[in-house]
Amino acid sequence: MIILGLDPSLSCTGWGLIRSEGSRIAHVANGEVKTDASAPMSARLDHLYSAIAAVIATYAPDRAAAEEVFANKNPQSTLKLAQARGAVLAACGAANLAVNEHAARLVKKSVVGTGGADKAQVQAMLKVLLPGAQIAGADAADALAVAIADAHLSYSPTAR
Amino acid sequence: MIILGLDPSLSCTGWGLIRSEGSRIAHVANGEVKTDASAPMSARLDHLYSAIAAVIATYAPDRAAAEEVFANKNPQSTLKLAQARGAVLAACGAANLAVNEHAARLVKKSVVGTGGADKAQVQAMLKVLLPGAQIAGADAADALAVAIADAHLSYSPTAR
Repeated sequence: MIILGLDPSLSCTGWGLIRSEGSRIAHVANGEVKTDASAPMSARLDHLYSAIAAVIATYAPDRAAAEEVFANKNPQSTLKLAQARGAVLAACGAANLAVNEHAARLVKKSVVGTGGADKAQVQAMLKVLLPGAQIAGADAADALAVAIADAHLSYSPTAR
Repeated sequence: MIILGLDPSLSCTGWGLIRSEGSRIAHVANGEVKTDASAPMSARLDHLYSAIAAVIATYAPDRAAAEEVFANKNPQSTLKLAQARGAVLAACGAANLAVNEHAARLVKKSVVGTGGADKAQVQAMLKVLLPGAQIAGADAADALAVAIADAHLSYSPTAR
């Protein structure tokens, strides 16, 4: 079972793939898709869509997962984030890939053991859980974390 | 010059095409894309993306236009709307179509003459401006209105 974790945002969308077998997980690949802030919105969204479609075509994941979005205090940030997410999820839909949504606290709890973990703790645990993986950046790390959480949650649903 | 107006939303995205030559406009086509509320989000967004991509492939518009989004009082509605918009704009981007954004008041002012016009006034003016057009519904009407506004604004930019 290959799981694609996604951390969509307009400027930089992280993605991370893991292989999950029972309680065991292994790193497959990860990366970040950056868009040019000076390009038209439709071109930036097309870039995100196309790049994630290419990742899906290359690695043929069985399912996908992303953190639940919540409305930010800044409405313009929320709109940008949600538009990016719409393009990325549409690319998943084109490949008949369902996208499980997990609350951010649940992702942290699943990866680190506590819902209040900070980014540094999540990244330190990724090194333990996916030894040897070269991680492209903070957004790719977040994407791998949500993929790991998705694997854990489907293996032991009582962890919810 | 063929202009594609768009009124994106998750449950029903309106689209409308007009031909614009100087100060003259004519109706080309319009329609609405509805998605199944019981389907996964990624499938709904894929449906919007694919349907708008098909409209673009069929009519080969020269440019596109949509109303500016604003954050709704209900954050969940804003997130749904913006995700739908992201999928629709990504389809425009895939066809190298720029999407002009116009404020809702400016669209009404351009079509009816006053920024405070209601939906009924906009629809009545559409019958005058696009005689004989069969309009698929309220969302298709809104899409035609933004296409007309885009034509007017590019013909007489001082109307801004």
